Amino acid sequence: MDNRPIGVFDSGVGGLTAVRRMHEIMPNESIIYFGDTGRVPYGTRSAQTILHYTRQDVAFLRSFDIKAIVVACGTVSSVALNAVSKEQNIPMIGVVEPASLAAMEKTKNGRIGVIGTASTIKSGSYESFLHEHKPELKIFTKACPLFVPLVENGRVNKGDIVIETVVKEYLTELKEQDIDTLILGCTHFPLLKEVIADFMGENVELIDSGAAAADYAKRILTLSDNENAGTKYFVSDDPDSFKALSHIFLNGEIAENVGNVEIATY
Amino acid sequence: MDNRPIGVFDSGVGGLTAVRRMHEIMPNESIIYFGDTGRVPYGTRSAQTILHYTRQDVAFLRSFDIKAIVVACGTVSSVALNAVSKEQNIPMIGVVEPASLAAMEKTKNGRIGVIGTASTIKSGSYESFLHEHKPELKIFTKACPLFVPLVENGRVNKGDIVIETVVKEYLTELKEQDIDTLILGCTHFPLLKEVIADFMGENVELIDSGAAAADYAKRILTLSDNENAGTKYFVSDDPDSFKALSHIFLNGEIAENVGNVEIATY
Repeated sequence: MDNRPIGVFDSGVGGLTAVRRMHEIMPNESIIYFGDTGRVPYGTRSAQTILHYTRQDVAFLRSFDIKAIVVACGTVSSVALNAVSKEQNIPMIGVVEPASLAAMEKTKNGRIGVIGTASTIKSGSYESFLHEHKPELKIFTKACPLFVPLVENGRVNKGDIVIETVVKEYLTELKEQDIDTLILGCTHFPLLKEVIADFMGENVELIDSGAAAADYAKRILTLSDNENAGTKYFVSDDPDSFKALSHIFLNGEIAENVGNVEIATY
Repeated sequence: MDNRPIGVFDSGVGGLTAVRRMHEIMPNESIIYFGDTGRVPYGTRSAQTILHYTRQDVAFLRSFDIKAIVVACGTVSSVALNAVSKEQNIPMIGVVEPASLAAMEKTKNGRIGVIGTASTIKSGSYESFLHEHKPELKIFTKACPLFVPLVENGRVNKGDIVIETVVKEYLTELKEQDIDTLILGCTHFPLLKEVIADFMGENVELIDSGAAAADYAKRILTLSDNENAGTKYFVSDDPDSFKALSHIFLNGEIAENVGNVEIATY
């Protein structure tokens, strides 16, 4: 048993899709969550800036006695995790490996699509991992830069012509490639599951990368038996806005116990 | 004559719509521009965070011997300018006053619309100024949170159902109020002028707040007679992405001479 908390971070609220899964499958784990809401989004920034911000996010989480870090952000996992995990002496679990492994298990025709932020897709992180493990896979990727702002503005429902038009525009070329598995490589994207599933059709399996990271963490970490485990949240902007948005990502649950952090000082 | 440069800043690239106007009407002015591309957008953040970022932006510009600051950002002008200008001993010109004065001149029926980011509209900055000067004006405001990401993704053209749908959604209630003047209270919004004008109809005058601030600066500042004046640009993220996006805002001109700043250290 290891009752130390698990640190989780994201550029903002998206990583709560991983926390939600952790609450479901590892209810005895204490969690320290950091959302960098004062500097969100990361997915449109340069690799150098993402690396700089990631080091600060990790330094903040390490100010607690945590046993591991779940990087619940597709962009950080793709752009900065390799470098930063080498600097740390606890496990750091990103979304790329777990989501890729899940996709490799699911695919039957070996044709996998990957969507993410501009930085994630530019990094080639998913292709690298997938091809290293199964060179014969065919990978098709597409940056979807408008998905994050659309999700954050609540444009997630079927019948909304704005999100439906953007989904169609971004995903048509993946659909035409006859993929049977689609990795949602950004932790905001599970909120678009219904619209995306509707467009891609029932034969395409969607992989929720935040949930995959949570499943992976459960498999590899020494778990806790703390029956009073809870989650503490920290953000770099106003805690109240974070609370107000959290229930969308936490399936109705509201993030209580939210503190503010001056992240640039870490 | 005062040949010292004018400092200009914005959360990102939007403020270039003011620079463009300054180049047109004050070609002898040297300009130091700062775009906080590492922390853009501001318009969705809390007042406290916007104030904190603004103080750093101003401190960076004050590291040069400048004669004035143009705050080419609707959000900063609305949320932080009053507090920060009191701390400075040079003029700070925001967009709210100039755009409001221009709207007061243009309106015939006394019904003025104002659109901006969520923070700008929440601040009530335009209503306060307009009502202080002309209490009989009827002001109608609307937050347009998706306009900034849509502009930054190039969704600015007529015939694009995404931008047309969002414009219609945000502006229908202003149109129904029979306004004859609409303040584009965010320096990104002039790029949507064509789509907005098309929806609002030819009887509604659009006020470009960045251009209004430039006009105002020309009126109140002691100008320069430097015939070799130029503009230096600084950003807090990758200079190359800024260069690549700049021509959209600078009417084809490309921002050369772009440096990087570690803004959190100011």
